[in-house]
Amino acid sequence: MSFITIIDYIGTFAFAISGIRLASAKRFDWFGAYVVGFVTAVGGGTVRDVMLGYSPFWMSNISYLLVTGFALLFVVCLRRYVVRLNNTFFIFDAIGLGLFTVVGVEKSLSAGFPMWVGIIMGTMTGAAGGMFRDIFINEVPLIFRKDIYAIACVCGGFIYYICHYAGLSPALTQLIAACSVILIRILAVRYGICLPALRGELEESGGEQKE
Amino acid sequence: MSFITIIDYIGTFAFAISGIRLASAKRFDWFGAYVVGFVTAVGGGTVRDVMLGYSPFWMSNISYLLVTGFALLFVVCLRRYVVRLNNTFFIFDAIGLGLFTVVGVEKSLSAGFPMWVGIIMGTMTGAAGGMFRDIFINEVPLIFRKDIYAIACVCGGFIYYICHYAGLSPALTQLIAACSVILIRILAVRYGICLPALRGELEESGGEQKE
Amino acid sequence: MSFITIIDYIGTFAFAISGIRLASAKRFDWFGAYVVGFVTAVGGGTVRDVMLGYSPFWMSNISYLLVTGFALLFVVCLRRYVVRLNNTFFIFDAIGLGLFTVVGVEKSLSAGFPMWVGIIMGTMTGAAGGMFRDIFINEVPLIFRKDIYAIACVCGGFIYYICHYAGLSPALTQLIAACSVILIRILAVRYGICLPALRGELEESGGEQKE
Repeated sequence: MSFITIIDYIGTFAFAISGIRLASAKRFDWFGAYVVGFVTAVGGGTVRDVMLGYSPFWMSNISYLLVTGFALLFVVCLRRYVVRLNNTFFIFDAIGLGLFTVVGVEKSLSAGFPMWVGIIMGTMTGAAGGMFRDIFINEVPLIFRKDIYAIACVCGGFIYYICHYAGLSPALTQLIAACSVILIRILAVRYGICLPALRGELEESGGEQKE
Repeated sequence: MSFITIIDYIGTFAFAISGIRLASAKRFDWFGAYVVGFVTAVGGGTVRDVMLGYSPFWMSNISYLLVTGFALLFVVCLRRYVVRLNNTFFIFDAIGLGLFTVVGVEKSLSAGFPMWVGIIMGTMTGAAGGMFRDIFINEVPLIFRKDIYAIACVCGGFIYYICHYAGLSPALTQLIAACSVILIRILAVRYGICLPALRGELEESGGEQKE
Repeated sequence: MSFITIIDYIGTFAFAISGIRLASAKRFDWFGAYVVGFVTAVGGGTVRDVMLGYSPFWMSNISYLLVTGFALLFVVCLRRYVVRLNNTFFIFDAIGLGLFTVVGVEKSLSAGFPMWVGIIMGTMTGAAGGMFRDIFINEVPLIFRKDIYAIACVCGGFIYYICHYAGLSPALTQLIAACSVILIRILAVRYGICLPALRGELEESGGEQKE
């Protein structure tokens, strides 16, 4: 098992834990929590693969199913310890975000798409799973309202682009891009940096809808 | 028209009815109810086909559109009788669930995927339509919180697997797997069996979200 | 830049504006508003392309990303003027709807699908983006409850069909179908025409759910 594979599973585990915890807060049953955890972990990569014309990556490797099952077991059995491990999960989640972004960028480039598609696909690989999770539990997606999350992936994609065109070796490019994502994510949370919200033009009306 | 085709249409009809009834409870217009009914009926199979690399099954056969139209007409014209037919619809729905699961498993296997992908695809064919329905009407998906529904598909998939490896003929394997799904579904509802809910670690905080 | 291209960008701009405005009413941050705007603009066409077996159209042309960026800038900088421009946006949106419908029909036909698939794909190209927008902002999709919107696309698709079989030239067929969509949409809003809502069979119970 290579180093990349281990990081991949750690990221999958952290993403699945995040989905399972939110599902449990909504009183989903075990099956529902498992599905939400799985979709959080592999949803972004699945949409990326379908758009690029590949079959979803998890369909050729049962590990992602098993890692999600392990995450469910972990939440069920060690419920008391899960809260105390918040910081650990946060780090795992950030590491997964960095790796997934780079994987998304690379897969798009190797499919022959231009760099800007790679940046979108990298961001989607990292952040779309969390968006599906929030749609499943019937909440407004968190990544649209709070924190620097998807934006860290976008920055990582641009940094990959710069390193790539600067002629750095593939391995170094991957490492720098992934670490940038992780660093941006950690710094953003540490210093409470977030994007400004858009002010609605009709603040008083709240739910005003225009077709 | 073969026996399988008739069962397929009966299942589609029952699934569409379920979507249309929930849409009408939310005061959707006719078009919205039709779309929700159609997505409930064909949504699971559509995602399966896209993931397996096929074009969606309903795009080569107009019958699914027509059956959904017939279901809409049925709900509109015979509103008073729909409630009284609850038990009939429940049986039709269970039969559809059994057939759709087996269709999903078979299509995955014939596309060359391993058995565990078949079980996932069978479950998705049976249960994902109801999930899309609930997302469209802006509710937390019911299959994540109540009843044995998707789990019946998972069990049916495993039973297919066992029969297949035990060397039973394809026709018998299909029959046993489909009947298992139907039986599990009926027994679960009859005896009120459901999966345990996951207890949230922070019950008091309710909507707590962690990225 | 051809006439069709200009209309395409105007429609994309109007669709993106509609997503960004609703996102801003929900206090999304800039990134979230951009994503919702982009999905509103290209979501329908993306699902269409995936179902038809193409790679999503916006992945081969960066213009749609840029037009959405311009729409975001427009809403941020000219917030005061956006409300006054409601009628202009409405016309742009209707024009986009007409064009997108015709594009969807044509792409399906050229992929070898029958006309009824073309009508569905045309409707999806025009109306599914708004549905995704409403799911992202956690509202019941507006197109299911109010206004003649998707139905205008369906009618346009049928009119395309009639012109096509009447032997009209492709250019004329496209023009008549697109203008019909625009006209139906404008007349429906001008005279407050809408589809009847389905009456729920159990009005008092509201959220009653049946599996």
